[in-house]
Amino acid sequence: MDAKATARFARAIAHESADRGYRAEVASGWDIGGNTNGGYLMALAGNAMRAHCGRADPVTLTAHYLRPVQAGPVAIACDTVKEGKAFATVRATISRDDTPLLTLLGAFGTLGDAGDNALRVDAEPPALPPVEACRPRADVEFLPALHSQVDMRLHPDDAGFTRGEPTGKAQMRGWFRLKDDEPITTIAMLLALDAFPPTVFNARLPVAWTPTVELTAHLRATPRPGWLRARFTTRFVTGGFLEEDGELWDDSGQLVAQSRQLALVPKAQPAP
Amino acid sequence: MDAKATARFARAIAHESADRGYRAEVASGWDIGGNTNGGYLMALAGNAMRAHCGRADPVTLTAHYLRPVQAGPVAIACDTVKEGKAFATVRATISRDDTPLLTLLGAFGTLGDAGDNALRVDAEPPALPPVEACRPRADVEFLPALHSQVDMRLHPDDAGFTRGEPTGKAQMRGWFRLKDDEPITTIAMLLALDAFPPTVFNARLPVAWTPTVELTAHLRATPRPGWLRARFTTRFVTGGFLEEDGELWDDSGQLVAQSRQLALVPKAQPAP
Repeated sequence: MDAKATARFARAIAHESADRGYRAEVASGWDIGGNTNGGYLMALAGNAMRAHCGRADPVTLTAHYLRPVQAGPVAIACDTVKEGKAFATVRATISRDDTPLLTLLGAFGTLGDAGDNALRVDAEPPALPPVEACRPRADVEFLPALHSQVDMRLHPDDAGFTRGEPTGKAQMRGWFRLKDDEPITTIAMLLALDAFPPTVFNARLPVAWTPTVELTAHLRATPRPGWLRARFTTRFVTGGFLEEDGELWDDSGQLVAQSRQLALVPKAQPAP
Repeated sequence: MDAKATARFARAIAHESADRGYRAEVASGWDIGGNTNGGYLMALAGNAMRAHCGRADPVTLTAHYLRPVQAGPVAIACDTVKEGKAFATVRATISRDDTPLLTLLGAFGTLGDAGDNALRVDAEPPALPPVEACRPRADVEFLPALHSQVDMRLHPDDAGFTRGEPTGKAQMRGWFRLKDDEPITTIAMLLALDAFPPTVFNARLPVAWTPTVELTAHLRATPRPGWLRARFTTRFVTGGFLEEDGELWDDSGQLVAQSRQLALVPKAQPAP
């Protein structure tokens, strides 16, 4: 593999300094039907915020999704609200032609290895068949472009929706890694936290498209090299909203990230 | 009861317009050992943000806690990032003498009644003994000032920590309402989501004080009049952090709010 291939994700979330903040290119090919993936956008912004405050890792990052985003140039404005000892608190807005697309608020610091300081864990990593037994998304007839950028394997028990056989359980589990052995950084986990198909695809509800209003990621530790195990669940589809709770576990069996997003449930839609 | 008494919470979160935003008074008596409660501060800011954008309810609101806050005057600066059809997206910072204390990002809109649109609910409201069987916090030897401002009753099974007998389960359940029959608004739910004792008090861990880094509230519906049922749980105490997940259910048995906060777990502390 050549050097270009090894840095596919790093290149896709690059930015350069500009007059009032940063300039970046929303890369093509990280979309679902033309709309850029929300996790990718969070990583793009998070990477600029990280550079802006000079801290290694996002610890907690909240993104509000204001408009669908297509590939092309964007501006990223960052401002540091507080430079603390443990964390820097930073706000950012991604915009194009002065129209805001995404606005974020996060705390950045330096994360360690989860295994060093696990006082209490009341959950298990998701039980998954070996990677080889979990088919890549290539079995999906309409493959979103995003899924050719990363290595993602769904648990066979959660993949029935791709054949029109949703499980009835609002859950999605699987393996995730970047292509070409590119290491999973804490920024890459922001992508992983929004890269899987929506849990609601397995819920047997008349709901297809659930636009994200807000996503908050909590990063606990830098993951060990290897595949991530991911689990996403939804318990409440009420009031026109649903939450999707995510967990990422690294190859050593440690929880490395959590997420919760609030998504809109549009009314009266046909089944997917 | 007199008119003054009926508006205890509403008065405590009032603000007035000022040169660049709003001016407010962090009321005394809403603290834990001198530090103002985080839910109260979120309600104070959320109320100003709501006024600023002219929308009825917070739908999702994220607060980053930058410094401990004592009672006294503060400035609340708000700016609207987007005026959308469904939501206005608003940022705010509470500061005193130009020092930021709390910074927030939220989406505001108009919430309905949860019962009108519950498509799927995979959980039950917490089972609680009748209110009369749940003792008020007056049984706690050292009663935080906050607990005299609201009507809060812990589930007896989760109150053992007050006698030095934590259950070992990182859970806290109970009833909540405002005093003097003041109605529970969506803004008041922000208070309820951070008013209960930390789950970790029941966890048999050498952890006492867990400062909140970030709290995100998702409000689903306007609650029916009456008591709220609350449940808070923690599953992961790792990497120097813990999450606390909250749920509020209204008197009609509907989920009305969710929350998740990220808190710091200071190292090497004596047991509470």
